[in-house]
Amino acid sequence: MRKLKIGLIRVVTLLDGSLLKAHEDLLLSRFKNFEIETQSIENQPEGIHDEETKNIAVPKIIKLAQEFEKKRVDVILVSCADDPAVEECRSLLHIPVVGAGSACASVSLSIGNKIGILGITDKPPRVMTNILKDKLVYSIKPERVNSTLDLFKEEGKKNALKAAIILKEKGCDTIALACTGTSTIYLREDIEKMIKVNVVDPVIAAGLIISYLHL
Amino acid sequence: MRKLKIGLIRVVTLLDGSLLKAHEDLLLSRFKNFEIETQSIENQPEGIHDEETKNIAVPKIIKLAQEFEKKRVDVILVSCADDPAVEECRSLLHIPVVGAGSACASVSLSIGNKIGILGITDKPPRVMTNILKDKLVYSIKPERVNSTLDLFKEEGKKNALKAAIILKEKGCDTIALACTGTSTIYLREDIEKMIKVNVVDPVIAAGLIISYLHL
Repeated sequence: MRKLKIGLIRVVTLLDGSLLKAHEDLLLSRFKNFEIETQSIENQPEGIHDEETKNIAVPKIIKLAQEFEKKRVDVILVSCADDPAVEECRSLLHIPVVGAGSACASVSLSIGNKIGILGITDKPPRVMTNILKDKLVYSIKPERVNSTLDLFKEEGKKNALKAAIILKEKGCDTIALACTGTSTIYLREDIEKMIKVNVVDPVIAAGLIISYLHL
Repeated sequence: MRKLKIGLIRVVTLLDGSLLKAHEDLLLSRFKNFEIETQSIENQPEGIHDEETKNIAVPKIIKLAQEFEKKRVDVILVSCADDPAVEECRSLLHIPVVGAGSACASVSLSIGNKIGILGITDKPPRVMTNILKDKLVYSIKPERVNSTLDLFKEEGKKNALKAAIILKEKGCDTIALACTGTSTIYLREDIEKMIKVNVVDPVIAAGLIISYLHL
């Protein structure tokens, strides 16, 4: 079968090759028929973590998506739990556009009844709360985690695991991870080893939705 | 890798072996690591097509789901676009329960902006409209299709294709098929051959969500 060509957009500027390719590698390890090219937006080393940084990123994402479309990829993946520019790209482009946030929320909704969001922003991504609505039981940001970079620190990961335990205690049967930095550090695996709960990884959820196109 | 054991519940009474196994076969053709046992509920040869037939089916579905759990399946699939008994089973059982309706709506929401529902009931399944909310552009029931059985008739399938064209004309970029009988007749393929639109098949969408559990 022909491989599915994916244009993957990272919304944090990554100059290091292995970090840049982290989501690409994660997806390739799970989906054998994917062919992926990754690009990251320019001049945003801290990524998207509030309205302002989101607004600055949107036109950069649209530009990358349009370039990918010209290169004839089959589908665009915007690898950010906030789905920045996803609606806009869907209107402007002629190929499917998948956002990690809507994919993660949607997959969560198909698995569980009581969903918790674990993210890096004070308010959870609107695209996710809009989808989860009354199935959203509780939303949490780990202590001292304010951007995707904080997840890479020992303390950040430890506090993210603590946050997962709190969501479980609040009665959540499913945790939707609301930052794709959690995919980079394989947080899903660590939570599932620690407690019995479904954990939805935003990058894998996006890959799952993309894989539908070839099923 | 160990196969994922699925208890698949058909909500229409099917005595014919090949019809009974239609969704099982469709899933096995797409997901190589599935192992499926199918059971259909008793005494409902016309399936679920309104509130009354849904209410009668719910306790039968719960009973089958509990029997499957005792047999130690990994996950339950309720193969009906109305998600009958899915919430109840999620509360009662200790394993994940996936409904074809919520899975189909969720996958649609992750692919498109303007969703159309094509089903067999005057009102589309509530579980799907609840998920799609303002992304639902239009909902349609093909002429002279009033139960899943009508889809198997030449005229029923022809009218279903006409309905898909109307959804496209209404501006839908994605069609969510709101009856798992459409999966049995491979309606998705026929629509995609005919017009450029994303079509989400409820049984395959449910399989997709289930496959997440092993990714």
